Order: sequence, then structure tokens, then C-alpha cells
Amino acid sequence: MTHENHALFTIFGATGDLAKRKLYPSLFRLHRKKMIHSHFAVIGTARSDWSNDRFRKVVAESLQDLNPTEQELNEFVEHFYYQPLNVTNTEEYISLQQLADELDQKYQLNGNRIFYLAMAPQFFGIISKHIQSENIISKDGFNRLIIEKPFGVDHESATQLNNEISAVFSEEQIFRIDHYLGKEMIQNIAAVRFGNNIFESLWNYKYIDNIQITLAESLGVEERGGYYDQSGALKDMVQNHILQIVALLAMEPPTVFSDEAIRTEKINALKAVRIFDTKEVNENFVRGQYGTGLTNKKGVPAYRSENGVKPDSVTETFVAGKFLIDNFRWTGVPFYVRTGKNMAEKGTRINIVFKSTPINIFRSVDEPICNTKKLPENILTIYIQPTEGFSLTLNGKKIGNGFDIDPTKLMFRQSVENLENTPEAYEKLLSDCLKGDATNFTHWSEVEQSWKIVDVIRHVWDQTPIDFPNYSSGSMGPQSAFDLLEKDGRQWVWCPFKK
Amino acid sequence: MTHENHALFTIFGATGDLAKRKLYPSLFRLHRKKMIHSHFAVIGTARSDWSNDRFRKVVAESLQDLNPTEQELNEFVEHFYYQPLNVTNTEEYISLQQLADELDQKYQLNGNRIFYLAMAPQFFGIISKHIQSENIISKDGFNRLIIEKPFGVDHESATQLNNEISAVFSEEQIFRIDHYLGKEMIQNIAAVRFGNNIFESLWNYKYIDNIQITLAESLGVEERGGYYDQSGALKDMVQNHILQIVALLAMEPPTVFSDEAIRTEKINALKAVRIFDTKEVNENFVRGQYGTGLTNKKGVPAYRSENGVKPDSVTETFVAGKFLIDNFRWTGVPFYVRTGKNMAEKGTRINIVFKSTPINIFRSVDEPICNTKKLPENILTIYIQPTEGFSLTLNGKKIGNGFDIDPTKLMFRQSVENLENTPEAYEKLLSDCLKGDATNFTHWSEVEQSWKIVDVIRHVWDQTPIDFPNYSSGSMGPQSAFDLLEKDGRQWVWCPFKK
Repeated sequence: MTHENHALFTIFGATGDLAKRKLYPSLFRLHRKKMIHSHFAVIGTARSDWSNDRFRKVVAESLQDLNPTEQELNEFVEHFYYQPLNVTNTEEYISLQQLADELDQKYQLNGNRIFYLAMAPQFFGIISKHIQSENIISKDGFNRLIIEKPFGVDHESATQLNNEISAVFSEEQIFRIDHYLGKEMIQNIAAVRFGNNIFESLWNYKYIDNIQITLAESLGVEERGGYYDQSGALKDMVQNHILQIVALLAMEPPTVFSDEAIRTEKINALKAVRIFDTKEVNENFVRGQYGTGLTNKKGVPAYRSENGVKPDSVTETFVAGKFLIDNFRWTGVPFYVRTGKNMAEKGTRINIVFKSTPINIFRSVDEPICNTKKLPENILTIYIQPTEGFSLTLNGKKIGNGFDIDPTKLMFRQSVENLENTPEAYEKLLSDCLKGDATNFTHWSEVEQSWKIVDVIRHVWDQTPIDFPNYSSGSMGPQSAFDLLEKDGRQWVWCPFKK
Repeated sequence: MTHENHALFTIFGATGDLAKRKLYPSLFRLHRKKMIHSHFAVIGTARSDWSNDRFRKVVAESLQDLNPTEQELNEFVEHFYYQPLNVTNTEEYISLQQLADELDQKYQLNGNRIFYLAMAPQFFGIISKHIQSENIISKDGFNRLIIEKPFGVDHESATQLNNEISAVFSEEQIFRIDHYLGKEMIQNIAAVRFGNNIFESLWNYKYIDNIQITLAESLGVEERGGYYDQSGALKDMVQNHILQIVALLAMEPPTVFSDEAIRTEKINALKAVRIFDTKEVNENFVRGQYGTGLTNKKGVPAYRSENGVKPDSVTETFVAGKFLIDNFRWTGVPFYVRTGKNMAEKGTRINIVFKSTPINIFRSVDEPICNTKKLPENILTIYIQPTEGFSLTLNGKKIGNGFDIDPTKLMFRQSVENLENTPEAYEKLLSDCLKGDATNFTHWSEVEQSWKIVDVIRHVWDQTPIDFPNYSSGSMGPQSAFDLLEKDGRQWVWCPFKK
């Protein structure tokens, strides 16, 4: 029994690539599932002076992969309307308002409105402002704003952006997409932690030695060189994805698995992440940029030779670091994080390294305890991509009369469709937004705190010269990333590339 | 580099089945491995009036399966000597003493003597007494006594038996064999507990809900009906094997993996097992006797129809019960135990059932917490027989968009040779005894405490009529064994036979 949602979707950037490749197919899927059906309408806006017919033709073309029947297609696209819009032109917003009200009447949309800003962030403010001033916000139903990352480039710009949109929309009305933070990942981590009392009972500084988070990409910047060179791995990956994973691992158990309860705990966890001073940044964070090398057995160019990248670029394509969380649960437990491009293997992986046994009772009877080798640690590994699941490394006994301890990995790994950035992912996001479920979206407090954590690192690095490139493509990053753990007497658990 | 041990073995019951099937082949294996070589001798004693030659011929015949070469055989058997002995005949003990001293000289045995009593327990006392009175005990090297179970039939008889032998041998000199308690099993349990900090950290009443121990046999009494009918499952299995496993699971961590440290902790654990009063026995222990049924797909007779069994026998072939351990670590945690003959499946298995999560955060947001179904518990299973290893049942997430919790078993299971009661097991026992390693043997305090625990149960049962048979062959025991857990709101984890 699918409940039909009544809503008007207004898509800013309706002629763009994102809309055509992701949004229209997603809306069509929702239509097929009757989550939207008779009582919905879509207004596309963009600068081009399109007619409804042209718009509908473009929408129809975007659905070819879904093999719609003639009837399906007609029933769907007749709900689509086009309104040309120059974002600074008040007149056109007035036309938009009139069209919106008209469609609301025609389709009985109950005043429910979703505004999707499929455009560059610099337009978010002005669009929001006009949505309000020209009364495009409805009085009766819900008004929701969907925006994509990046949300600012530092704490200051993010705050300014947020001030602009939150002058019009309240926090509950703003849906900030972070694809990486898919429901699947949250559910996977939550299932391991809160579904298994043996793990959650051990989930603190008393039993965990360190936590390692790796987001490794085996590709370079590809066609995104121009964008990437302005951003770098710290902003592109650490500020959002990695800190989201840190928050999910570090948070206190929510009272229930709801978006609000989880967000609250994630925000608390992020607020406990230590914001480093200059000395701590230098001690705890390192960066890298890839040189030439082999990835997937193919020779690849250095970052500085990529299209769109400055030949003397000091943008980092790799970050490794150690976060510390100053609360009762995590004091003294390093959260080592690592992300990079052109690495030896693709994958997102979390290693929970438990403390070894207090003493090794299997030492020789006469051996002084101080000389004894520690037993291998128990390690819980959570796999996020490309497959999801988990494994646990335990110590068993070697077969036979002797008594050697034998580390053994118990695997529970599932192959699942990777939903990140696919039409299915957008379908889910749109459906969540229709239902008002914000689990999949980032709260301003999370964005804000993440920028605060990352800004100090960026600031120190911007003032410190660095010699790039410093790691080969196809490796697991620069030597400094290994040294980071070695000086703590530890090492990366996941090490597909041997230095 | 094997160290050659110097020793004289005196085997009482040298013409018997055990000696021929197990002891001589085991000694030969030790000889092949040069753990005994030039400096050893074996005196066989029994009532029969054999010559050395006849004895050596019998020994040689017992080795046929090992395919000895002519030379190996000769080198080995020439160390064997026979002394006729009626256990009450002092004269013959004097001859034995003279022979022993002579061989000690001849083979430079350094006065090291191992006495193996391969006979019925009623002779242990008189033999020990004569070993002392006729100076068969040496003054120079070690003197060690090996005896087989059963060690008494209750606390009183065991104490008497022990008094008799301990008038001659000190506790460190007495090696009480319990085959079931092989090193493999101890090592297996120890590896899981003390090799994995995540388990030992959880190994107490705060995290463990209950522990289940099952020793299931899929055979009936076979040819042992006459003996078994005098004994029953309580004495035959619970008093020794099951309580040994309870001790290994419940004990505090030893400081080092040595026989002495482990024994000390096992004894402490057994002393903390609650000795029940009559009411508690009736509440916590149930017994059964098999009727007809199917085991291994073959129809089998009822216990009362077995050879050597009285047709109105009330001997139990099945016991299930709940032990409680009154100490800081285990208060309130039931140790459910179960053993029986003609059960649905053969196997020795330990289930550690951890407590479920305090609340189920995956319930519906609106669902009252009191109505919520608990999540499946995490269960650690230790397999002892027929294969060894362990598995862990964890909760993962079902694949897909929904969020169902999916219990998943991670297996680490090894197939190993079952060493119980094989020549290899005896080889190990003899080798341990030669080295003075008592891990494999039972301390008097363990025997004593086990009888105290079991005697009260026996006593109550002997005074209470029971209606037998009460379970079908091929089942997992009588209904009362299931009720035992059900009244605590629990159930047996291992349930190959569905009621």
C-alpha cells in the first residue's frame, strides 16, 4: 500500500545535466511506484526560453532507459511545466508564483512544495530570497528546500550561505544532500554497533585501542581537475564524508533509530572532536599529492599533469590524520583517517582495533612478562564500499599438539548495489524528502562543526610550503601517512600496498 | 631435539586389554620419537605366570599396526620384563622390587619410576601399600602413579580410595587420567577466552546471559550395559567431564598457561559451584532414560532391553541441569548442562549466550519500549567434538533498502583428529607424565569437589521414584530438559531435534 504524496516540485536548473540524468528518471520511478501519481506537478526553471512541450520532450528522452510505455510516458510528462527564469529577474519569479498556485489548484497539491536547487551554490541566496519575497512559499502545506554539496568552502562561507537560505527556510525545511552518507552506510554501522551487544559493550576507550577509517579511491581526478584543484581532499572528503563516519562511530547510542535522534547524537560527537592548534595540526595531519605510477595496472599521469590542474599545484589529493575525541567514551583513542586518489585499491573501510589481552598467558612459563610479545589484537572491520558487511579477526589455536595462536578472520560480507550517486539514490532522496525524513541529509550543526574542525588544518597547511608530488599513484599514500601511526607504535590494518 | 627420558614403567595389569591396545603402542611411539630410548625399561605384572619371552611376544604383536622393522622391534621389546604378581602376595612384590632395582642399574634409570595401575580401582589401595612396604618406591628419582577413572562412586568412596593411595604417594605424584579433558579441549577453550580480549572482557555476569554445555552421544550403552547400569549419566559424565568444562569456562584467568596455574583456578571455580539442597536439586536437575527410537536412521532398543541392564532399571542415561556459581564473576548466570545417550546427534558443544542489547533501537519510533521484541542474542559457540573450533552469531543488516536485522553465524571450525581414548592420546598422557606435566590429569581437590556437587543430586534422585523410559532414542532428551530452560524464559541453542 503506497501512499500517494501530493506535491509540487520546482527544479532550478531544469535544463542541466543533473536534472536530466538523475532527477527526472527518479521522479518517474516514484510515479511508477505511485508514490506520486495524480496529485503532483513539476515546474522546471532555467535561463533558456523553453516551452512546456520542449521541456516535456527533454524529460521524456531522459526516461528512455526505463522503457516507459506510451501511456506511462504521457501520464507522467503532462504534469511537467516550464518557466524561464533568470535568477535575478523578479518578474519571472512572479510568473513562477502564479504558475505554482495554478498547478496547486489544478492538481490539488495541498500547498506542498519542494524546491530543488540543482545549481551552483552562489545562487542559493538570491533564489531563496525571491522565493520568499514573491510569495512562492505556500501558506498551507510544507515547503522544503533541497540543495547539493559543496556547502561552502570553509566555516565563514558556509555560515554566510546558511544565513541566506535560513532567512527563508527553517532548519527542518532544508535538506542538504550528502550522497556518501547513504542510509545503507548508516544502517550498516548502526547494525554492527547497536544490533550486537558484544560490540556496543566494548565500544569505548577501555576496550578499543584505535579506530581507522580509510576512503581510498583508485582513480585520479579524471575530468574534475578544474574543480578539484580549487578544493583538495581535505574539503572534498574529510570535511564531509570522513567526519560523518567519525560521528557515526563515536556517537552515543540514540534512543531510537530515527533521523532526529541520530542527528542529535552525531552533532554531540562532532562537538567533542578536538579542534587542533597549529602544533597539533602539524603533529596529527599529513597531506599528499600523487605522482605518476600504476593504478589498475595502467600507467597514469601525475596530478600536476591532469587536465585543469595547475602545473605547480599544491592541492592535496591525499590526507591522513588523527582525530581525538575529548569525552568520557573516547578519551585517548585515536581515530586515524585516510583518504586519497590514485591509491592501490578502491574501498571504504573501517577498522576497529580492540586492545590486546592485558597479558599473554601463553608465554613460556619462565619468560619475564615484560619481554613477552603481545597477542594479535581482535579487529572488527566494517566494509562500506564496494561491498558492505563486516569481519572479525580472532585468535584461534593452531591445529595439532602444539599451542600456537592463529589469527583468523571471520567474514560476513555482502555484495550490494552501490547506491551512491545513482538514479536509485536520488529516487530515495526525493522520496525521503517527500516524507520529511532527514536521515539522509546533513544538519547545519554538522556542517558547521565539520568546517570548524577542518578549517584549522587548512589554515596551517596554507601557510606551510610542501614538496609535491610525494606519493606514487597505486600506493597507499606518502611515507608520512605510515609514520603517523608508527610514531604511536601502531600501523594501518588495511595495507594492500606494501611500502 | 628430543630429550631422552630415563624411566622404569611398571604396568599393573600387563596382560589386559588396555595395556595391549593402548599402552604398548604408545610406548613404542615414544621410543620411535626417542623420548624414551636406551634408558628405559618396562615391567609387566599380572596374575598369569608368563615368561619374559611370552610377554615380549605379546608386546610385539600389539605393535603390528605400526609396522615396525625387525630391528626397531628387537631394540624395543628387549626392554620389557615380566613379573607374575598376585596383588596380595608379598613375596611377589619383593621379586618385583629386586627386578626394578636390577633394571634401574642395568639401564641407568636414575631411580625414575612410573607405576601404571591398569586395573580395577579396588586394587589401588593394596598395590600402593605394597609398593611402599616392599620398597618399590625409589629413593633417588621421581615416583609417579597413573590411575584411570572412575575414581570412586561418590565422595565417601573417592575419599577412601584417595586416602589409600595418598598414604604412599603425594598429590604431585598422582596422575589421574581423564581422557575427555584432553589438552586439545583445554587449549581450545583457553585460546578463545585468553587469546581474545574481546571475549575475556565480556566473560562475566554483566555481559553473559547464560552458558550451555551439551555432551551428546548418538550411541546407546552398547557392550557396556553391565557397567553403565551401576553408574548412570550423572556419575559417568557430569561428575567428571561436564564439571571439568564448567571449571574451564568459569575459572579466573591463570597468570600463565601452566598446569599448576590452571588447576588452581579450576579448583577455585569448582568450589564456587553451589551445592544444592533437596529443593534446589528438584528445581534444577532432571534425568532421563532412553526408550526405543531411531538413531543414525536405525531402529534401536530401549535402555531396559540392552544387554546387562536390568529390565526395571531406573539408571539415568540422560541428565540436564542448571549449575549456579556463587562468586563475583558469575552470580546469577545459569550454566545449563546436558548429556545423554542415544541422542539426535553426537557432539560436545558450548554455547555462550551473551545478553541482548539493553533496548532495541530499531523498533518503530512510536512503539512502546515494553512491547518491543528483543534483538537476537550474540552467541559464541565452542565446538569440542567431533570437530573443534568456534563460531559467533552476530546481527547484520539484511541486504536492501529495508532495515531488518539478520542473524549471521561466522564460523571458524577445524576438523581435527579426535584424540580421545586413542593410542595417540595415551602416548601424550605417558609423555606428559614422563615430563611431570599434570595439565591433562585431575587433581584430588577437583575430584573431591565434583563428588560433593554431584552427590546431593544422586541422593535426592535415589529417594525419588521416576517413570522410565521418558525420552525416545534419537531425540534431545525428555520434555523436562526443555522445560528446565523454558521456565527461565530461555531455550537450548543447539536443538538438532525439534520436539
